[in-house]
Amino acid sequence: MPLTSEFLRDLEAIVGARGVVSSVEGRLTYEADMHTFYKGIPDLVVLPETAEQTATVVRRCRREHVAVIPRGSGTGIIGGATAPLGGVMLGMNRMNRILELDIANRCATVQPGLINLWLSQAAREHGYYFAPDPSSQMVSSIGGNCSTNAGGPHCLKYGITVNHVLGMQVVTGEGELVWLGGKVPERPGYDLTGVFVGGEGTLGVVTAVIVRLLHVPEGVKTLLASFSTLDDASETVSAIIGAGIVPSALEIIDEFFVRAIEEGIGAGYPKGAGAVLLIELDGPVEEIEAQAGHIVPICRDHAALEIRVARDEAERALLWKGRKEAAGVVGRMTSNWLLQDAVVPRSRLPEIMRRMQAISDRQRLRIANVFHAGDGNLHPMILYDDRVAGELERAKLANEELLRACLELGGSVTGEHGVGLDKAESMPLQFAPADLAFMARLRRCFDPDGIMNPGKLLPSHPACGEGFRPGPPRFPSGAWV
Amino acid sequence: MPLTSEFLRDLEAIVGARGVVSSVEGRLTYEADMHTFYKGIPDLVVLPETAEQTATVVRRCRREHVAVIPRGSGTGIIGGATAPLGGVMLGMNRMNRILELDIANRCATVQPGLINLWLSQAAREHGYYFAPDPSSQMVSSIGGNCSTNAGGPHCLKYGITVNHVLGMQVVTGEGELVWLGGKVPERPGYDLTGVFVGGEGTLGVVTAVIVRLLHVPEGVKTLLASFSTLDDASETVSAIIGAGIVPSALEIIDEFFVRAIEEGIGAGYPKGAGAVLLIELDGPVEEIEAQAGHIVPICRDHAALEIRVARDEAERALLWKGRKEAAGVVGRMTSNWLLQDAVVPRSRLPEIMRRMQAISDRQRLRIANVFHAGDGNLHPMILYDDRVAGELERAKLANEELLRACLELGGSVTGEHGVGLDKAESMPLQFAPADLAFMARLRRCFDPDGIMNPGKLLPSHPACGEGFRPGPPRFPSGAWV
Repeated sequence: MPLTSEFLRDLEAIVGARGVVSSVEGRLTYEADMHTFYKGIPDLVVLPETAEQTATVVRRCRREHVAVIPRGSGTGIIGGATAPLGGVMLGMNRMNRILELDIANRCATVQPGLINLWLSQAAREHGYYFAPDPSSQMVSSIGGNCSTNAGGPHCLKYGITVNHVLGMQVVTGEGELVWLGGKVPERPGYDLTGVFVGGEGTLGVVTAVIVRLLHVPEGVKTLLASFSTLDDASETVSAIIGAGIVPSALEIIDEFFVRAIEEGIGAGYPKGAGAVLLIELDGPVEEIEAQAGHIVPICRDHAALEIRVARDEAERALLWKGRKEAAGVVGRMTSNWLLQDAVVPRSRLPEIMRRMQAISDRQRLRIANVFHAGDGNLHPMILYDDRVAGELERAKLANEELLRACLELGGSVTGEHGVGLDKAESMPLQFAPADLAFMARLRRCFDPDGIMNPGKLLPSHPACGEGFRPGPPRFPSGAWV
Repeated sequence: MPLTSEFLRDLEAIVGARGVVSSVEGRLTYEADMHTFYKGIPDLVVLPETAEQTATVVRRCRREHVAVIPRGSGTGIIGGATAPLGGVMLGMNRMNRILELDIANRCATVQPGLINLWLSQAAREHGYYFAPDPSSQMVSSIGGNCSTNAGGPHCLKYGITVNHVLGMQVVTGEGELVWLGGKVPERPGYDLTGVFVGGEGTLGVVTAVIVRLLHVPEGVKTLLASFSTLDDASETVSAIIGAGIVPSALEIIDEFFVRAIEEGIGAGYPKGAGAVLLIELDGPVEEIEAQAGHIVPICRDHAALEIRVARDEAERALLWKGRKEAAGVVGRMTSNWLLQDAVVPRSRLPEIMRRMQAISDRQRLRIANVFHAGDGNLHPMILYDDRVAGELERAKLANEELLRACLELGGSVTGEHGVGLDKAESMPLQFAPADLAFMARLRRCFDPDGIMNPGKLLPSHPACGEGFRPGPPRFPSGAWV
């Protein structure tokens, strides 16, 4: 088929010449997301500015059976926004506007490329904010947050992204532009919004999102408690939840990370601590004062070494800065690392910590941890040095063992980051063939030709049938130079 | 095809002879749900006791292309649990056990026939409860609540049913038994739980549900404010929400219902009031006291005639009894009524109230109202007398006008009750053909032969394709007697 120049011309006619990236240098910047291993250069990058352009691009790609890979800010860590098989990457960054701030109905309609934090900044003057705040909120896009159904430190109290999405405008794999949901939360028919959130671009691409806004709480109180052991910190978490208090965040930072953060950026964490627990309360001032009054003695009962309360916004920001930049500072402590996104029911936290220690001992590799303790969502980081023979292999083994341990304890193959390329082949560990076949059928219903983000989310498992793994890329890399 | 006796024998072999209702008298008790008009006698009623039996029954029905209509307590008001075209009704009432109360992980696994209120009663001794409490909670089943994605007075603060369902075991229209979701809220893959909740039995039937339990709030405070006009009450609602307070309930009861309730059961509502606002606050005692301290002056500023605070649990129960039995007491005030389940974005409440008055004047019929004001979810009741020529017709016209008015104001064809038979033909008022076609495709994906609850949820619209409207019933009523 004489695809090349006609196809390129058609795409340029849709989005304009500046909306198509075909040079090698340009495409190279879209080679990877934040996963350690996966890479792949898209054959073309297309940057639409409207929903209609997006739909037209998808329809044009469908005609040629060319893979379409949606991408927000590329901050995902599952390889979901990469093009390992080539194809057209749909960069949604230019669609980054707030279309409507509807304060009376406590919602906003935004474009998918909008940076998460920008929305809260815009809503703040009206006294509102957007609750889902993944640690990457300064750079990640709302479209990407929706696609991975991102969590974050505050989802213990406020829920994950899907709990804050009221509606979406999407382009399906057929190139149809449809609205799912809407401003009114009670809506008839099937809740397709819930399917699309977490769909990782395998069902289509999001072109607008209606999100719920929450009233900025009257007060916020951030406490830091340090302990000599991780066990004491974990048990404090159980005791707080058991007392019926739901803090807005409950984060544990282990000894390794406390040291790394202090040496890297200096957040004022107590240096010798075996574990630090970051507790945040929000709500009416009377309520959080009362909660803090309950929490302090609970920490003391669990042998807290020190309990500190942030006295002002600057101190609070500093305590969080340590947590939010944990992943960034680790570079100075290790050559390489593998990040696992593990989750277990909260009651199994002590058990998974023990198993993790055993895996660490067996594979002779350090496993460091910062995690959303209130949710049972761990982020173990397996540290290795790829210059030492065998360490990479042992790191991969440890990673696999960790995943299986979580599943045995009733957890899931992924916590808040999604499946992408990274966990696709692990899905059969958690799901029966009938479950996978079912998901595959659903996928086909949105994307009959299997052009949307192929190879992601579902495994190359017989139960998933055909149609989701494209053949060799139609446009071998470099075809456009 | 020689179906009859072999089919009956097979079903009896699956669920036992006592699990199949074939007599006319027996089947007649399943003729209707709580909708005013729709009726239809199922050809057989089957009462499974296990998920496996349910799956086997569905597979057996599928072989004969016989319609399957799931039913919980039959308290729905949309005709969703009726068999207007005949077929096999699956009564889930015998599956009414709590399978697990997992307090450590704040969840419970229950069978679909469990009565909503029973779960909160069982969890209460551990300090937990199940938040979704439709007004019918004393009789409605959790399976039915899930199927219609029921709302209720407290969903302003706590969200609707879907926000409390973590996972489900379901039998699809293919007769496959699959688990969707699970105890861990962060789960990979497509969120099929969200699709099934609100699926109204058109995708399959629910055989187990994992629901989230919440900690019983430390305190509850119920206030009643009366006003001389409905406008004053509505504006008070806006002012409370605008002040950043989210009460657990905000219910408006209009003049007609205040009188009906007082004459019927005597809940102590001020008789002469033009509208009564029921406000409930829950949470830590300090918090609700502070909130009440804000709310009382707001009510006064909006010309409240009287503000009353329930002094104890008995007074609180009495205030709620009036609201919860509003639908029951109306019988003494009118011969007939049509209940609409309308919803608009909250900011449009004053506008829809004005339009409702205009419709009432035009059709010369009284429209009475109790509603979840905080959500913009109205329950207008159009009163008529079918012995007066033309009143039924005018009531239907008023009903239709009301629906269109809600849609024009950005609302939805249904609030918290679902679509069922009642609103199926209204879906094209809200959804474009592409949206409907999309839903139909999704439905087919779960139920390829269109046997599940045919004729419900989607309209007989060309966009919905074929396969969802069965031909004449295979078993004409009475075939089994």
